[in-house]
Amino acid sequence: MQRILTSEVGSHVGERVRVMGWMHSLRQLGGINFLVIRDGWGIVQAVAETGAELIPLQQGEIGVESVVAVEGLVVVEVQAPGGIELHDLHIEVITPVTEVPPVSLNKRKISANITTLLDHAPITHRHPARRAILRLAAGAMESFRSTLTARGFTEIQTPKIVAAATESGANVFKLDYFGRPAYLAQSPQFYKQIMVGVFERVFEVGPVFRAEPHDTTRHVNEYVSLDVEFGFIENHFTVMALLRDVIAGILATFDEHYTDELALLGVQMPIVPAQIPHTHFADAQELILRRYGVDVRGEPDLSPQDERWLGEWAQQEFGSDFLFVTGYPMRKRPFYTHPDPERPEYSNSFDLIFRGTELVTGGQRLHLYSDYLAALEKANLPLEPFEYYLEAFRYGMPPEGGFAIGLERLLMQLTGTPNIRLTTLFPRDLSRLTP
Amino acid sequence: MQRILTSEVGSHVGERVRVMGWMHSLRQLGGINFLVIRDGWGIVQAVAETGAELIPLQQGEIGVESVVAVEGLVVVEVQAPGGIELHDLHIEVITPVTEVPPVSLNKRKISANITTLLDHAPITHRHPARRAILRLAAGAMESFRSTLTARGFTEIQTPKIVAAATESGANVFKLDYFGRPAYLAQSPQFYKQIMVGVFERVFEVGPVFRAEPHDTTRHVNEYVSLDVEFGFIENHFTVMALLRDVIAGILATFDEHYTDELALLGVQMPIVPAQIPHTHFADAQELILRRYGVDVRGEPDLSPQDERWLGEWAQQEFGSDFLFVTGYPMRKRPFYTHPDPERPEYSNSFDLIFRGTELVTGGQRLHLYSDYLAALEKANLPLEPFEYYLEAFRYGMPPEGGFAIGLERLLMQLTGTPNIRLTTLFPRDLSRLTP
Repeated sequence: MQRILTSEVGSHVGERVRVMGWMHSLRQLGGINFLVIRDGWGIVQAVAETGAELIPLQQGEIGVESVVAVEGLVVVEVQAPGGIELHDLHIEVITPVTEVPPVSLNKRKISANITTLLDHAPITHRHPARRAILRLAAGAMESFRSTLTARGFTEIQTPKIVAAATESGANVFKLDYFGRPAYLAQSPQFYKQIMVGVFERVFEVGPVFRAEPHDTTRHVNEYVSLDVEFGFIENHFTVMALLRDVIAGILATFDEHYTDELALLGVQMPIVPAQIPHTHFADAQELILRRYGVDVRGEPDLSPQDERWLGEWAQQEFGSDFLFVTGYPMRKRPFYTHPDPERPEYSNSFDLIFRGTELVTGGQRLHLYSDYLAALEKANLPLEPFEYYLEAFRYGMPPEGGFAIGLERLLMQLTGTPNIRLTTLFPRDLSRLTP
Repeated sequence: MQRILTSEVGSHVGERVRVMGWMHSLRQLGGINFLVIRDGWGIVQAVAETGAELIPLQQGEIGVESVVAVEGLVVVEVQAPGGIELHDLHIEVITPVTEVPPVSLNKRKISANITTLLDHAPITHRHPARRAILRLAAGAMESFRSTLTARGFTEIQTPKIVAAATESGANVFKLDYFGRPAYLAQSPQFYKQIMVGVFERVFEVGPVFRAEPHDTTRHVNEYVSLDVEFGFIENHFTVMALLRDVIAGILATFDEHYTDELALLGVQMPIVPAQIPHTHFADAQELILRRYGVDVRGEPDLSPQDERWLGEWAQQEFGSDFLFVTGYPMRKRPFYTHPDPERPEYSNSFDLIFRGTELVTGGQRLHLYSDYLAALEKANLPLEPFEYYLEAFRYGMPPEGGFAIGLERLLMQLTGTPNIRLTTLFPRDLSRLTP
C-alpha cells in the first residue's frame, strides 16, 4: 500500500491507509494502547485494542523514535489529535530503537536546559516546538526570495573566502588558503554592491561569519544573512520602503502558511503599518531627554535602553511594533555610508527597531568613485585591498542602497525566544563548534 | 516621469517614456547618433537626430558606462534591437564616466582572455553574455527550490564552520576559531542527513569549500552546492528518480523563462528522458571492453575517458544526453555509503553522466546505527568526532539517500563553457582570491 503523510490522513476517513514515521509515543490507558506516529509533517494517533496488534513492538522492547510503518482504518474521533485516529492496526518496524533518547520528545514542552538542547540538537530538533522554529526559518527565506523575485531582483551567491577583511577589518576569522592568509566574509556587502552594477537589484541568502568574542544571548558567530542591494534609489527612504514590504511579506507568509507553528510557539504576531513610523536620530535623542529625562545627546549611537524607550514611544504614539530611526551619525557608520546632503555629519542610514530592539540595519551607500576615494582617505584605509570593489564605482554606478536581515535574530525577536542559539540550526559561539 | 524598464518599452509604442541605465554604446552613422541604454534587464536604442539632444553628453566627454536617464518617444523600427527605439530625446547624466573601461562591453562577443575577464569581473559581468550565465545560475537555484518545495522538502542552512573535517579528512581549509582549530565544511553531508531525522526531506543551497590543490578547468575551491537528502526511500533508484525530476525542472525553467539567455549563449538544450537510462558499474566496464577494446575491469572508478565512452554509448544506444552509472565499488565511496545488499562489494550509489562527463554524485546512505559503527571501524576512523552525527542514527533513521549538484559545474557543462571559472560568480582557485 502506498504511504500517505500524516497531514493527508484526515481526507481518507473510512479508508485503510499506510503512514510511516517515528514512534512518537506509546501509552496504555484503560487496557487500550495509544500509539502516536510522527512524520516530517505532523502526528497521527493509532489505537491498538488488542495486544496482538502490538506484537511487532515486542511488548515495549521496541521504543520511542523507532521508525515504523502503520496501516489502519481512518476513524473520526473528536478526542484524538486532529480529530481522527487509526484503528485495526498492522504495525511494521523499519528501524528499531531500544535506547531511551537523551531528551524526552513527546511532552508538549521540551524540558531540558539550553546546553542539553544544543548538545543533542540532532535529536531535540525532532520535538514539534523545535521543529516549528526551523520551519519558520524556511518560510522566512522563501518569502524573502519571493517578494524580491517578484520585483525583478536577481539572486546571487557571493564568495565567503575573501582576500581582505570586508568592512571594519576587525573580528574576522583567519584562514590558511594554500599557505597564504585569507578571511571569512563578514558580509556580502562589497559583492552585492558590485552586482548592482550588473543587475541593478540583487539579493543573497547565505552564511556570514563574525569573530566577535561576545558571549551574549543575542550573538552567534555564524548566521544566515538575508541581503538586499539595489540601484536607482532616491535615498534611504526608498530602501526603507522595500524593507517594510519584505518584512510584511514574511509576516503574511507566516500568517497564511504557518498557523500551526505560530500557535505552538505562542507567537504574538505584529502588524506592519503601511508606512512604518520614522524618526531622525537627533530627534530621537531629544525625545528621550524630553520624555524620559535622560540626556543622551552627543552620543554617537543608541544604547539598548534608548532603543527600548523608542520602541515604547512608537507603540504608544503610533500603535506600531516597528520604528525606523534614520540619520545615524556618520562617525559610527562604515566608510561606504552616504551622508545626508543637508547635514553631512548625519548619514542616510537607518535602523529598524522592532519591539524595542534593533532588527535590521541599512541605508544609502556612496556611489561616486571620487566619494569612495575621499571616504577611504578620511578613514585612513589603504586603496589597494579595495581596488576590485572600487572598479564597480569607477565605471558608473547609480545611487544605491540596501539592507541585511539576520534570519536567526528575526526569528528570536518575533517568537520571543530568549536566546538566539535556540533559533539557530546548529549554533556556533565562543565555546561551541558541535553539533 | 516614472521610470520604466527596457523590457517594458515595447508595450508603450507611441508614448513618451523614461528609461534609466548605463550608456552601453554611442555611435554616429550618417550624421545620426545611436545611443544604446542598458539596464538590469536588457537594452533599448535611442536615436538623436539633432546635436542638441546630445549636449548633456558634452560631445563625447561623457563616455560609455555612464549612468543616464533618457526620455523619448517610443517608435517602431524593425531595424532596431527589439523592433523599437526612442526618438526626440531628453538625456540626463546621473553618474558620469570619462575613463574607458578595461574591457569593451558593447561588442557582441567579449574579447578578452580569461585572466582579464576574471580580474575585472565587477565590470565584465556587465556584458550581456556574462550576465546571461549568472541569470541562468539564479534560474537554476529558483527551479531547484521550487521542485523540492512542491514535494514537501524543507530548506535548511547548515553551519560552514565545523569542528572536524567532514568526509575524508583531506583537502579541508583550516581556520583559527578563537584560538582553536576548526575547518570549513566540504559539504553539508552530515547535517543534511541529521535533518532527515527531523523533516524527512531537506535541501540546501549554499557554499562548500574544497582545499584541493588542483589547477584544472573543472575545479574551483569554493562553489555553490545544491544539496538534497530524504528518507523513506526504497534504494538509490528512488534518489535517481528525484534527481531526474530536479534536472528536468531546471531545464524546463530555462526553456520557459530564459530563452534570450540560451540564445545568446548558443546553448544546445538537452532533452531529459522520462526515465534516464542506467547501467551498472560492472556492466559499464564490460561494455567498454567489448565496444572500445580497453580492459578497465578491476579499476575501482571510471576515468574521464571511460565516462566519455559511456556518454557516446548512451547517445547512440538511447539517444540520451544523460546516463546513470550505478553500483560504484564500495572501496572508492565514503564510509556512509550503503552497500548493495546482493553484492556488498558494490554500493547503492550512482553518478549522473551528462554528455560524457560526471555531473552529479549520489546514493543511498547507511541508516542503521550498528552499520555506522561497523563502517567507521572498517574505515579506521575514530568515533569521537562523529558522535553528534551518529546520534541521529542511534535514535531512529529510515532508509535514506540524496545527492549534490555543483551549480557552476552544471552551468559549465550545459552551456559548453570551457572553464568553470567562467560560470562562477567570483571564483576562488589556487592563485585567485580577488575580486
